[in-house]
Amino acid sequence: MEEILRRQIEKIVKLTDDEFSFVLSHFTARSYKKHQYLVQANNPAPNDNFVVKGLLKSFYIDDAGKTHILQFAMEDWWISDPQAYHNKVNATLNIDCLEDTDIFFISIDNREKLCAEMQKMEYFFMKKTTAGYIALQKRILSLMSQKSEERYAQFVQLYPDLLSRVPKALIASYLGISRETLSRMSTF
Amino acid sequence: MEEILRRQIEKIVKLTDDEFSFVLSHFTARSYKKHQYLVQANNPAPNDNFVVKGLLKSFYIDDAGKTHILQFAMEDWWISDPQAYHNKVNATLNIDCLEDTDIFFISIDNREKLCAEMQKMEYFFMKKTTAGYIALQKRILSLMSQKSEERYAQFVQLYPDLLSRVPKALIASYLGISRETLSRMSTF
Repeated sequence: MEEILRRQIEKIVKLTDDEFSFVLSHFTARSYKKHQYLVQANNPAPNDNFVVKGLLKSFYIDDAGKTHILQFAMEDWWISDPQAYHNKVNATLNIDCLEDTDIFFISIDNREKLCAEMQKMEYFFMKKTTAGYIALQKRILSLMSQKSEERYAQFVQLYPDLLSRVPKALIASYLGISRETLSRMSTF
Repeated sequence: MEEILRRQIEKIVKLTDDEFSFVLSHFTARSYKKHQYLVQANNPAPNDNFVVKGLLKSFYIDDAGKTHILQFAMEDWWISDPQAYHNKVNATLNIDCLEDTDIFFISIDNREKLCAEMQKMEYFFMKKTTAGYIALQKRILSLMSQKSEERYAQFVQLYPDLLSRVPKALIASYLGISRETLSRMSTF
């Protein structure tokens, strides 16, 4: 299970065994059952979570009580409430498990310590955050400029693995389209 | 003009005079007239731009020829095509000037060099990127969950300075609402 985290980091920076042990000492392993929450709105959310096994979603409940899916995360992905994590404020998002899930989490304090002591890891997180920023910008352009059909086709192309594991209603919410529209488009 | 850049950086990390001179040596000053382009789609966009004076917009033109405003940037803000910048690919966005504009730009190569030599600056860019990531995520939630009126009210609250400097039609495009809807809501 440690090896999955090591491979994730070594896609960007190489580590000696000693360096990886040092990195790993800043993380904690934890397991959750399907339906369990990692983060609940209006509560602290001091951890960033790397998924070793399983599937999660982050979502926002608006004032009218409607749920909006912000992100899914499966093996080799990270998930958190970034605002709550980085700014040490209460969460606005919720994160729960769609399957039984194993994670490594790192607290913001541990991450700051790790990055200060090991510039390689600052570089790693910088690259991950930048990639995340670019992905969010694409999603904004997609929400602004693409029709439902195009957004669905792009999702199928980008995340074929999610398609078979995530209930249709949740994919519809993620894409900002109605369940009925999605049912018309999808053939699975 | 250098002082504005220094203040921007020193909001996050303190620099000695020598350190700031070293940082500055990685930037280049440049001036643009209103309507000039900094970035054009399908061309390289190797610079991140810090605005010293003026106002710019970044926008995407979709396959149907419709323009979507992604970002405005005024004094003390940064603007680029992040995907083109970080991944060294051609731009998908355009960036042009809404007013005469002075900037400091830094190439991705210079930024990588600067960060490698000065961990403080990696920390600075990490903080800026993280703040940008959080802002984009809020924008996605806003696009998914808020009515036009709420999006406009939020814009007024967040960016009162932009309201008086940016033409209404561009604010409408940024908010993803029609010009007519915006006219109904705004009293200026």
